[in-house]
Amino acid sequence: MSDRTKFILDESEMPTAWYNIVPDLPAPPPPPLHPGTGQPVGPEDLAPLFPQALIMQEVSGERYIDIPGEVLDVYRLWRPSPLFRARRLERALDTPAKIYYKYEGVSPVGSHKPNTAVPQAFYNAAEGVTKLTTETGAGQCYDQKPYRKFMMETYGAVVHPSPSDLTQSGRAVLAEHPDSTGSLGIAISEAVEMAAGDPDARYALGSVLNHVLMHQTIIGEEALKQFELAEDTPDVIVGCTGGGSNFGGLVFPFLREKLAGKIAPTIRAVEPAACPSFTRGTYAYDFGDTAGLTPLLKMHTLGHGFIPDPIHAGGLRYHGMSPLLSHIFELGLLDAVAISQSECFAAGVRFARSEGILPAPEPTHALAECVREALRCKESGEEKVILTALCGHAHLDLPAYASYLAGEMVDRELTDAEVEQALKALPVTT
Amino acid sequence: MSDRTKFILDESEMPTAWYNIVPDLPAPPPPPLHPGTGQPVGPEDLAPLFPQALIMQEVSGERYIDIPGEVLDVYRLWRPSPLFRARRLERALDTPAKIYYKYEGVSPVGSHKPNTAVPQAFYNAAEGVTKLTTETGAGQCYDQKPYRKFMMETYGAVVHPSPSDLTQSGRAVLAEHPDSTGSLGIAISEAVEMAAGDPDARYALGSVLNHVLMHQTIIGEEALKQFELAEDTPDVIVGCTGGGSNFGGLVFPFLREKLAGKIAPTIRAVEPAACPSFTRGTYAYDFGDTAGLTPLLKMHTLGHGFIPDPIHAGGLRYHGMSPLLSHIFELGLLDAVAISQSECFAAGVRFARSEGILPAPEPTHALAECVREALRCKESGEEKVILTALCGHAHLDLPAYASYLAGEMVDRELTDAEVEQALKALPVTT
Repeated sequence: MSDRTKFILDESEMPTAWYNIVPDLPAPPPPPLHPGTGQPVGPEDLAPLFPQALIMQEVSGERYIDIPGEVLDVYRLWRPSPLFRARRLERALDTPAKIYYKYEGVSPVGSHKPNTAVPQAFYNAAEGVTKLTTETGAGQCYDQKPYRKFMMETYGAVVHPSPSDLTQSGRAVLAEHPDSTGSLGIAISEAVEMAAGDPDARYALGSVLNHVLMHQTIIGEEALKQFELAEDTPDVIVGCTGGGSNFGGLVFPFLREKLAGKIAPTIRAVEPAACPSFTRGTYAYDFGDTAGLTPLLKMHTLGHGFIPDPIHAGGLRYHGMSPLLSHIFELGLLDAVAISQSECFAAGVRFARSEGILPAPEPTHALAECVREALRCKESGEEKVILTALCGHAHLDLPAYASYLAGEMVDRELTDAEVEQALKALPVTT
Repeated sequence: MSDRTKFILDESEMPTAWYNIVPDLPAPPPPPLHPGTGQPVGPEDLAPLFPQALIMQEVSGERYIDIPGEVLDVYRLWRPSPLFRARRLERALDTPAKIYYKYEGVSPVGSHKPNTAVPQAFYNAAEGVTKLTTETGAGQCYDQKPYRKFMMETYGAVVHPSPSDLTQSGRAVLAEHPDSTGSLGIAISEAVEMAAGDPDARYALGSVLNHVLMHQTIIGEEALKQFELAEDTPDVIVGCTGGGSNFGGLVFPFLREKLAGKIAPTIRAVEPAACPSFTRGTYAYDFGDTAGLTPLLKMHTLGHGFIPDPIHAGGLRYHGMSPLLSHIFELGLLDAVAISQSECFAAGVRFARSEGILPAPEPTHALAECVREALRCKESGEEKVILTALCGHAHLDLPAYASYLAGEMVDRELTDAEVEQALKALPVTT
């Protein structure tokens, strides 16, 4: 096994249940609150946005939820995804560390997102929903990076640039900032507003909520099996965090094993210096979207009015953080670091030139921390085992690499005054 | 095994030798000729363009050539590639046919090309070559489809649009056709000219020659093993042909088994109606490039001066065809069909909406014939087993899908007069 590059599971070995970490935590996460009453939201409050099956998953106390056979059939189009040992990167860094990466870019769209998009579409369809709305990083760069839009249109989707004049939320942003670069928070407001106003429509989201992170746990469950094949155990697990779904998906099964005392990895979230909700935000109740249409979520946030600089990692440009991950952070079960965009792209180019794969802008954040850790090992001589979440490739984000290579990428440090100003917009809760 | 989606080989089962079909053919292919002397070219004629190891492979009479360990190490970054059973496409077509596809889009660049690019780079480096030149479809659409260029630049390559003013060949084309849309033939002239004029440089090519097709046979060798796992045998094998490397790579190992009397599949090349070298070209000695810098190759050709319409399948816009495949076609061991661009994209969209993967414009040609065959089976009730070469995904060609979906794609039938005119440029040989 010692000179193996990929650890592959047969599709018969694919996990058949998602893992819900909530019942295994030492304390339950604070509930979402209704902004009007200040009371925990009930299933009926969420019904205009989500099908019943997903609402039940969102609040479930079960440790495992069976993946429907129809979803497993679709997962088999690309899953199980490979775990790689990055031997060439190790040599390039001249490190004694062993680097592994779990690669989600093998899905047809090139990222981890269909792990949850498919079951969300399935449960909605099963309850008669005929239309789904969602936000996407692509909406933020409708003109500069049109390829993702073309891909969605090929599948039959309709894509609108955000902020748009199709919704009250979008029009309000445009009235105040006609040149707004948009954000995931604004796009969420628009998608939620459209779903709430259409009885045939519901809202699908790409991250943040419990059920989304739970769907992504198939990543970590596979990785655990693959580490058994590799006869190895990670000492450090790094992943990028925007809303937290790829990171939570990889780390929750490992955290289960850690909470059970079986392993003891350091678990580290990496966020962009331009949007550092964990490292510079506050832990408070806030809206999940810019317009304030969602329930209040207790999370690490920069304030729902915060519009991050238009960095290339569009998927990480979110003012908040998954409430579940925020809670786990507060419990001291993970740490976090923020890294600037150009250090991330430097790691991405280094990775592409050694391992072949061009990482998406988002996971270059994980790779940058992985490189830091591997170089610390070179310094100290430690032979740590590092597991990196590589949640997608850059085929639809190649202009970002062109910009980096042309020396046009600018890192701007967020000032304390900016953070303070953004946090003033936090809603008052009891 | 019956409801399996993917047939996966472990990397320990990856073939360790390439297959050279030449010694197994009932007659040897006609040799390349020196355009000046009309005599077969010798190794010394090719030395300015290729390293010795590849020249030896080009003329080898050995049935198998061991893959160097260093190349196997790189192959393991994505190989073995998966064989899929297209169950969802079968259902969408309501066909009794069984459809399989061998998918090469799992490589870091998204196509079969690194199967030969890696060994070519390896053998050149081993002989001290420090610079490689090559043609690429991307050069043809430098401005319209810049993503592939960005990818190559990230790996460290320099990309010039072709025709360029950097070479005599390019300047000659521009002088006559200032708005030339370029072609693979022109790009080959430019790449060959640059390599021949630089003692540190050699020329790497993406298709056409024997050694390139041989490197691609790892595709077919894997597929044979995967069909054993599937306990099935193909009745029809379809692949797209530009220069022929993906097609030859998949079918040669199956042809070996067919020549040995073990299986009896129909083997069918699919080419664009806009560039139909097999179906409307002539079998004659012609130059491999537009400027006439290469040896004369006996092949199916539309004439080296033929500039195909700028269809989206840039990789199929080549005036000629692999001499080896041309010879095999003349031996009656394969047939060919030409299909128009919009029928191909219709098949591509159908495939994307059932199987998830967006096929590159080139393999949509194979898929279009696969759909035709599956619908013929629906008509006749035959339960044929169809194997389709899916040589890459469309992530870098998404504007082509946007154009198709917008109804902007135009099919133009090549007139007999155009073909006749193009063939007038054929060189006179004895």
